[in-house]
Amino acid sequence: MKDELRVLIWNEFRHEKNNEKVKAVYPDGIHRAIGEGLGHDLAIGYATLDEEEHGLSEQRLEDTDVLVWWGHKAHREVSDEIVERVHKRVLAGMGLIVLHSGHFSKIFKKLMGTTCNLKWREADEKERLWVVSPGHPIAEGIGEYIELEQEEMYGESFEIPAPDELVFVSWFEGGEVFRSGCTYTRGQGKIFYFRPGHETYPTYYNEEIRKVIRNAVHWAAPTGRPAPLFGNRKPLEPLKSRQEA
Amino acid sequence: MKDELRVLIWNEFRHEKNNEKVKAVYPDGIHRAIGEGLGHDLAIGYATLDEEEHGLSEQRLEDTDVLVWWGHKAHREVSDEIVERVHKRVLAGMGLIVLHSGHFSKIFKKLMGTTCNLKWREADEKERLWVVSPGHPIAEGIGEYIELEQEEMYGESFEIPAPDELVFVSWFEGGEVFRSGCTYTRGQGKIFYFRPGHETYPTYYNEEIRKVIRNAVHWAAPTGRPAPLFGNRKPLEPLKSRQEA
Amino acid sequence: MKDELRVLIWNEFRHEKNNEKVKAVYPDGIHRAIGEGLGHDLAIGYATLDEEEHGLSEQRLEDTDVLVWWGHKAHREVSDEIVERVHKRVLAGMGLIVLHSGHFSKIFKKLMGTTCNLKWREADEKERLWVVSPGHPIAEGIGEYIELEQEEMYGESFEIPAPDELVFVSWFEGGEVFRSGCTYTRGQGKIFYFRPGHETYPTYYNEEIRKVIRNAVHWAAPTGRPAPLFGNRKPLEPLKSRQEA
Amino acid sequence: MKDELRVLIWNEFRHEKNNEKVKAVYPDGIHRAIGEGLGHDLAIGYATLDEEEHGLSEQRLEDTDVLVWWGHKAHREVSDEIVERVHKRVLAGMGLIVLHSGHFSKIFKKLMGTTCNLKWREADEKERLWVVSPGHPIAEGIGEYIELEQEEMYGESFEIPAPDELVFVSWFEGGEVFRSGCTYTRGQGKIFYFRPGHETYPTYYNEEIRKVIRNAVHWAAPTGRPAPLFGNRKPLEPLKSRQEA
Repeated sequence: MKDELRVLIWNEFRHEKNNEKVKAVYPDGIHRAIGEGLGHDLAIGYATLDEEEHGLSEQRLEDTDVLVWWGHKAHREVSDEIVERVHKRVLAGMGLIVLHSGHFSKIFKKLMGTTCNLKWREADEKERLWVVSPGHPIAEGIGEYIELEQEEMYGESFEIPAPDELVFVSWFEGGEVFRSGCTYTRGQGKIFYFRPGHETYPTYYNEEIRKVIRNAVHWAAPTGRPAPLFGNRKPLEPLKSRQEA
Repeated sequence: MKDELRVLIWNEFRHEKNNEKVKAVYPDGIHRAIGEGLGHDLAIGYATLDEEEHGLSEQRLEDTDVLVWWGHKAHREVSDEIVERVHKRVLAGMGLIVLHSGHFSKIFKKLMGTTCNLKWREADEKERLWVVSPGHPIAEGIGEYIELEQEEMYGESFEIPAPDELVFVSWFEGGEVFRSGCTYTRGQGKIFYFRPGHETYPTYYNEEIRKVIRNAVHWAAPTGRPAPLFGNRKPLEPLKSRQEA
Repeated sequence: MKDELRVLIWNEFRHEKNNEKVKAVYPDGIHRAIGEGLGHDLAIGYATLDEEEHGLSEQRLEDTDVLVWWGHKAHREVSDEIVERVHKRVLAGMGLIVLHSGHFSKIFKKLMGTTCNLKWREADEKERLWVVSPGHPIAEGIGEYIELEQEEMYGESFEIPAPDELVFVSWFEGGEVFRSGCTYTRGQGKIFYFRPGHETYPTYYNEEIRKVIRNAVHWAAPTGRPAPLFGNRKPLEPLKSRQEA
Repeated sequence: MKDELRVLIWNEFRHEKNNEKVKAVYPDGIHRAIGEGLGHDLAIGYATLDEEEHGLSEQRLEDTDVLVWWGHKAHREVSDEIVERVHKRVLAGMGLIVLHSGHFSKIFKKLMGTTCNLKWREADEKERLWVVSPGHPIAEGIGEYIELEQEEMYGESFEIPAPDELVFVSWFEGGEVFRSGCTYTRGQGKIFYFRPGHETYPTYYNEEIRKVIRNAVHWAAPTGRPAPLFGNRKPLEPLKSRQEA
């Protein structure tokens, strides 16, 4: 009944060109692996850092319902002007899914208002993501936990605002925990941060991880509402001060 | 693609038989007026207090995705056993929409853990429900506010847990405010409390009020997930204490 | 400047009489060990299950600012009438600290509105409680985490309402995580659930655990405010409906 | 027992020099009126826009426990460098109380990650601030509501993140509502936004308004905790991947 959701998957797309190990895992780029996992009922597009305007023109963003973001080494190369543009679109209702090292992207830090700093370790260790919001639509079809044999560790403190809803908490073999699935609303836009997805592991081929991202895209779809009115407004009811005047 | 949502609308259904004024507004009962407002893409059923088991047999509840609840004068006549039954179904994932004076129903008080007490006044006064969560799916299609020319007043303090999400705040002509649209999750079940709907006003014929209830029903649809496992569990990782033994 | 806070520590006090292992760890009862850890600037009292009215007379509760609760095997023996009494006092502003197996106490379940069920395992395993709300007063003086060499495991899903604030998340050696420090407000009363403290381990002698409980007691101190007014109220502003009449 | 809290009250301090009406209400500046209302158990200092570094040197901020902020017309004149400095101090634990038109200050917008836009009207109308978190320490000593005979109106939508805790909701004579008392935690810092205080009204002489600001200052006091550790970290537990290597 509804039109297809328009999803735009943005990727830094550098590791896959420069690093043999990453290239072996994601030969067409992380964005393509994510996109393949989203299924066939969405209108999926791609954009990458080195395209003009990073592939994020005004028109392109206007035509996007949900933006998925993966970045790592080149956050600083994303232009402030385009970050501003994405920020406006999120407040106006575009959904935003921030993945893994995207926690340090300019857009996520700007929306959160904090450093989004955390602990990390690359040691091929086990991660287990436990569902702690059992009724949340982002966890639909997921069992008690998702197990990933090898991933990068991210550990608390994670310097973010307390999430509106905490969907996943990760257990790491090395002794840490992490708030791995966090929802936020900013303006009319819904935001989901999802931890897994280091570039050297085949995480985005994992069926459960794909299901979570798919669920998140649907959850983050814009709500059809008029833009809010701000500024100087006439009273809706008679004022004593005006009657006396 | 998905099957039709199965919605069960429960009504005390006494005022409409005993009170001429109410009968004039809702000749077929408040439940029918609510049901008519839900549109044609839902499988809608009805149940009322004076039916056997209040119309809420185990099977009936098992076959319900979202339960809508309107009660007022006869909360005490609802049997504790059936309240227990509804409670279990909500924790297992059935959605629950509690309307107006349902704030004092046994099931809502049990789920909230508080008295759910509030201020009230019947004085044909104006209510304006402001959207304060502009991106929330329950507010889809709603403008800045909904205006009701005449309603009963409900005022703060409203003794409820802080809602997970506060969707509407009401302004009343007589000087009070009220948290009028509140979401909660309990177990796997999603709950929405929505304030308007005093039995002497035609509130449930209002198109915007109907849209909110319709949105809420869709929002509260169960998330397909296995029942949680509780109790004594074997370790998922080897324990030093066991290796030493 | 303020008067001393009046803290009442309630303990089931059965294990310490019936079980040699527990008696060896807590010869005077768990309540005494908790009380000793609270320091010298509080007015501390004790109450136990087998006292008359479980040591929780109307007067005793009236004279209590913060109630600490430890129970395990005999939750059902706590009378419903006294649970009702404690519930009223919490809503009226008395703080409540629920420890460990107290998650299954009648009072906690009543306040939460859910089953408060969880996973558990007694296997002498390591627990590490990570601070995830770094600015929270309950974490004052605590480092990044508290490590307990041996504890009972509690694992997710923990069937509770999403906490108002999540202060601690536990990592367990056996592969689970748990929301170990959760705050709630119900009515005017502040509630803190704190996970550690199985009866066979010397957890309540641990200096950091004691500091958390001490912090929680101060955090849960009642806020001096008038009781809320409920029921039928006159308008604060002139109503058009009344002027016309 | 604890040392005096060190409070720094920052004011734009322009209206009081340029506008006769404002000068008449606050002859020594809004900051002085706020400071007088804070009582005698705090170490109070003042800083204003036109001082060097806006009175907010590194040392001054280092020596501040809670910063109170009032600004209106000259938000843009606050240097980005100093906003950055205040931001860092908040994340490190300094409390921040943002008053009235401070909603549009650079520091508040940066911490919130949203526009912080709202509706407004200057029409000498009545405001009634209802307490909706009855147990919150910021509402200590406050009755059901605070009434202000004349204030500027601020109305929803207020484009902020959903507050961690919503303490006050305002009713306005002209028909609007507003989330008037909002708490947030960012990093280790506690933030309170409090709506009232337009420069042409004697709001900061009102005893209840002063009590709220006083309560908020105490609530926002820093929690003594070590700075969080971020970055690359060694495992706390042995890793299979390392043992195999």
